[in-house]
Amino acid sequence: MSAIDFRTEPSRYRHWRIEADGEVAYLVMDVDPAGGLSTDYELKLNSYDLAVDIELNDAVQRLRFEHPEVRCVVVKSGKDNVFCAGANIRMLGKATHGHKVNFCKFTNETRLAIEDATEHSRQIYMSAVNGSCAGGGYELALATDHIMLVDDRRSTVSLPETPLLGVLPGTGGLTRVTDKRKVRRDRADVFCATEEGLRGAKARDWRLVDEVVPPSKWDEAVRARASALAERSDRPAGAKGIALTPLQRQSDGDRLSWSHVDVALDRARNVATLTVRGPSQPVPSSRDAAHALGAAFWPLTVARELEDAILHLRTNEAAIGVLLLKTDGEAQGVLDHDAFLIAGQDDWLLREVRHYLKRVLKRIDVTAKTFIALIEPGSCFAGTLAELVFAADRAMMLVGTREGDNRAPAAIVLDEANFGLYPMGNGLTRLQARFLGEPEMLDALHARLGERFEAEAAEEAGLVTFAREDFDFDDELRVMVEERASQSPDALTGMEANLRFAGPETMETKIFGRLTAWQNWIFQRPNAVGEQGALKLYGSGVKPTYGKDRV
Amino acid sequence: MSAIDFRTEPSRYRHWRIEADGEVAYLVMDVDPAGGLSTDYELKLNSYDLAVDIELNDAVQRLRFEHPEVRCVVVKSGKDNVFCAGANIRMLGKATHGHKVNFCKFTNETRLAIEDATEHSRQIYMSAVNGSCAGGGYELALATDHIMLVDDRRSTVSLPETPLLGVLPGTGGLTRVTDKRKVRRDRADVFCATEEGLRGAKARDWRLVDEVVPPSKWDEAVRARASALAERSDRPAGAKGIALTPLQRQSDGDRLSWSHVDVALDRARNVATLTVRGPSQPVPSSRDAAHALGAAFWPLTVARELEDAILHLRTNEAAIGVLLLKTDGEAQGVLDHDAFLIAGQDDWLLREVRHYLKRVLKRIDVTAKTFIALIEPGSCFAGTLAELVFAADRAMMLVGTREGDNRAPAAIVLDEANFGLYPMGNGLTRLQARFLGEPEMLDALHARLGERFEAEAAEEAGLVTFAREDFDFDDELRVMVEERASQSPDALTGMEANLRFAGPETMETKIFGRLTAWQNWIFQRPNAVGEQGALKLYGSGVKPTYGKDRV
Repeated sequence: MSAIDFRTEPSRYRHWRIEADGEVAYLVMDVDPAGGLSTDYELKLNSYDLAVDIELNDAVQRLRFEHPEVRCVVVKSGKDNVFCAGANIRMLGKATHGHKVNFCKFTNETRLAIEDATEHSRQIYMSAVNGSCAGGGYELALATDHIMLVDDRRSTVSLPETPLLGVLPGTGGLTRVTDKRKVRRDRADVFCATEEGLRGAKARDWRLVDEVVPPSKWDEAVRARASALAERSDRPAGAKGIALTPLQRQSDGDRLSWSHVDVALDRARNVATLTVRGPSQPVPSSRDAAHALGAAFWPLTVARELEDAILHLRTNEAAIGVLLLKTDGEAQGVLDHDAFLIAGQDDWLLREVRHYLKRVLKRIDVTAKTFIALIEPGSCFAGTLAELVFAADRAMMLVGTREGDNRAPAAIVLDEANFGLYPMGNGLTRLQARFLGEPEMLDALHARLGERFEAEAAEEAGLVTFAREDFDFDDELRVMVEERASQSPDALTGMEANLRFAGPETMETKIFGRLTAWQNWIFQRPNAVGEQGALKLYGSGVKPTYGKDRV
Repeated sequence: MSAIDFRTEPSRYRHWRIEADGEVAYLVMDVDPAGGLSTDYELKLNSYDLAVDIELNDAVQRLRFEHPEVRCVVVKSGKDNVFCAGANIRMLGKATHGHKVNFCKFTNETRLAIEDATEHSRQIYMSAVNGSCAGGGYELALATDHIMLVDDRRSTVSLPETPLLGVLPGTGGLTRVTDKRKVRRDRADVFCATEEGLRGAKARDWRLVDEVVPPSKWDEAVRARASALAERSDRPAGAKGIALTPLQRQSDGDRLSWSHVDVALDRARNVATLTVRGPSQPVPSSRDAAHALGAAFWPLTVARELEDAILHLRTNEAAIGVLLLKTDGEAQGVLDHDAFLIAGQDDWLLREVRHYLKRVLKRIDVTAKTFIALIEPGSCFAGTLAELVFAADRAMMLVGTREGDNRAPAAIVLDEANFGLYPMGNGLTRLQARFLGEPEMLDALHARLGERFEAEAAEEAGLVTFAREDFDFDDELRVMVEERASQSPDALTGMEANLRFAGPETMETKIFGRLTAWQNWIFQRPNAVGEQGALKLYGSGVKPTYGKDRV
């Protein structure tokens, strides 16, 4: 399979349509069966693969940035009789384990982005389920805040993964059934073990949908509900969206570059270096100026480019096990932009940018690679960019300067962005999670905003793992990267997935921790992927043969 | 391997000694290398297999019941130079996937039992680490509330699983490092990726141990610390323990029976029926009378027998996928015992019995089998035994009576035991977890203590999944069991592990959810268990070859 590109735009969509109608937008799923990533399977019945979800992710983003007037988004199907059949099973049956895992991770992030849009953009998502809504289709509906189901005796919601396919609903379904919709556990058990699912009043009584509507009243009821939800939104009236212009990416052998992000791959060592550049322009003089910059507004540019880089590396460069994180630029420019962002949180666009940065940082938290932040002279790990240090598994900082380099010693600078702008999935800021055992150190840091923490001070304050002199730095880094590359990639993935999420768990962390880990386990088991396994045999007419042992 | 028996007693221990010294007891690990479950491996360097942990579990129990005078338990090694090398790697390398999973589950439960004893019995556990303390050895220490480390340059704590074996620390290590000891995540990353671990002051400064002590002061410091911890305990002075007399179990083909618990296996259908009998004697007339009954006190008898049955089925009967739960007896007897238990929570023994019942019910919550409660005439699902209904994945209740059976219709009766005596691992009662979405129904139930809920009332109140008439009951149950048996055991395990734990997560649920699920995944991966995998090659002198892809 050639490299998967996450960049797209509505004119290139093959599977979705955005039908904007004033303050309500219809997000219409109408999957082109021949439009999947591979010709090995057909995307029948609005089933999806990653290609479909890349468009959905793009649509959710564009609605936020390009359509500030939209207050309610109605997810519906463009096909008769089927809302969405879920992830394409042929695709899952043929996919590598790594692709399945990456596919589920990205689709989970997209569904969380829908919830994030509902909560933080106040673009409130609802689902108008007309026709069968199965598996990943129902999980998509579960990501919206209101589910309407037509009461026509053939429209059903179901999670048939376990009874039919021997796997779990992989996009948060189990967690959202119990924790978001709070379905009683015995009913959840019945529902999730019943291939045909539920319909009508029973689906509503069991809390699986919010309302059921007779076919004769359907269109009117959907419109009315959308209007009612739109009224609850605080989106600004008369705001004008900005264009998410095409993301330019240069690729040159083992080097990828965007305007403010660079990735250099060292395949021999299974390591890549990702560099983020600070702002090259001063902070906009006004909000209007920021709006006029649009996608060229530095924090938005960085969010988009960093996201594209992470998604690319995660999906297309599995053998890269270690990512070295660097920055390049002036701390002051970053701090100025942070101050501008923070002061503008009542502006819809600046609010969007902040939440987008938050989501991109969260993608790092769930990426199965080791992140090591390198803080050296010339870097600008300040405020928002300092979050990269705290998102990293380790951070190494150079003490003083290197011979022949007359730049100032590296420094980390904190600002208010580090104290609440970018919560992790568990609801804590990265600094809170870092100092769970030493909250007094967190308080001390909050009193030192704007201070330049050079290496030894940063180490003492707990901001970096190691401060090292020039003569140790490169050697120690080399050994660290070699060691990491020599260890089991699977054990490292599991280790990082545990160590990164100290403290509280939320629906979001449950989805990436408990649910995803179990799913990944099942995705390895002969009962799912063996020659007689359910995923392998699906569609062949042959029934799977399960080993009976309960493990 | 022949059936594994969880019953033991100190006179039969080969690996542990309880050295009681007034209010301090020393729990001494001195593993007999030849005393493992199999002769395939030698338990060198205080490494352990399930046989060792069965004794540890028994010792922790007996300290609670037989030694009420003990206020502090010091875990230490009976060998020179090594505290504990952790789980035996040869054993792990040769074990089936199912055995590894069951082994980790049981050892996790034992370590949680240590924390439960510290918190609820106020037998406060501490570790005196003299020598190397690696992997599961350090995880054992992590389960204690205070870790002392001798500062002798060769005594270390370490979690070498990831760098050395390509797996995770499987007994809660990662979770306790981040969530109990609150080690900073970057330091946790360094520690968990460093084979040789840490020692001395650095181990303390990184929060991995609580104190380091020079060798010259070691014995005195351990004694002083134990005395200080003992002083914090509220154990009663002058109390006399009861004897946990040998558990009698009859085995007759596919039937197992204890005094108040029966298990009937139907191997053809992969189902077993577990029946718990209510009390055959009236409630004791006084606390003294209950103490005199000792292990024959009904709630304690039931706890021990039910636990033995669950452990046996889980470990030795993997192909049994469904467990039907029944009770037999008079509700009033159960309610009387509950009232007696509840009124006596300031009595050390009655408190122990309650917490033991709590732990046994929690074993059900993490058992990889489907539980279906069957509530029929003659049953006594009241109070404590009604928890079996709420622990089950589903419950079916018979409406009215069966032809020719003149017993009264079945009823469920609630009492205060259902409202706080037996919290799940997530801190919620089973009824709270059940009614997360309908808290008003929970409140309504609390106003109806003592009421007999017959089938239709029970269904309406949300206590059972289905109320069924005689003519439907057996057929529906048959279909339900057949359906369950036809579905993927792995998917069911993952599904249940998600649906059973709605609501908050705790360190305990993180260990069984996030950590265990990742570990089980890794235990399936070629990098661990393939021909070139780390577990397979351990001790062979050949280095493992890892696939480099990060998944």
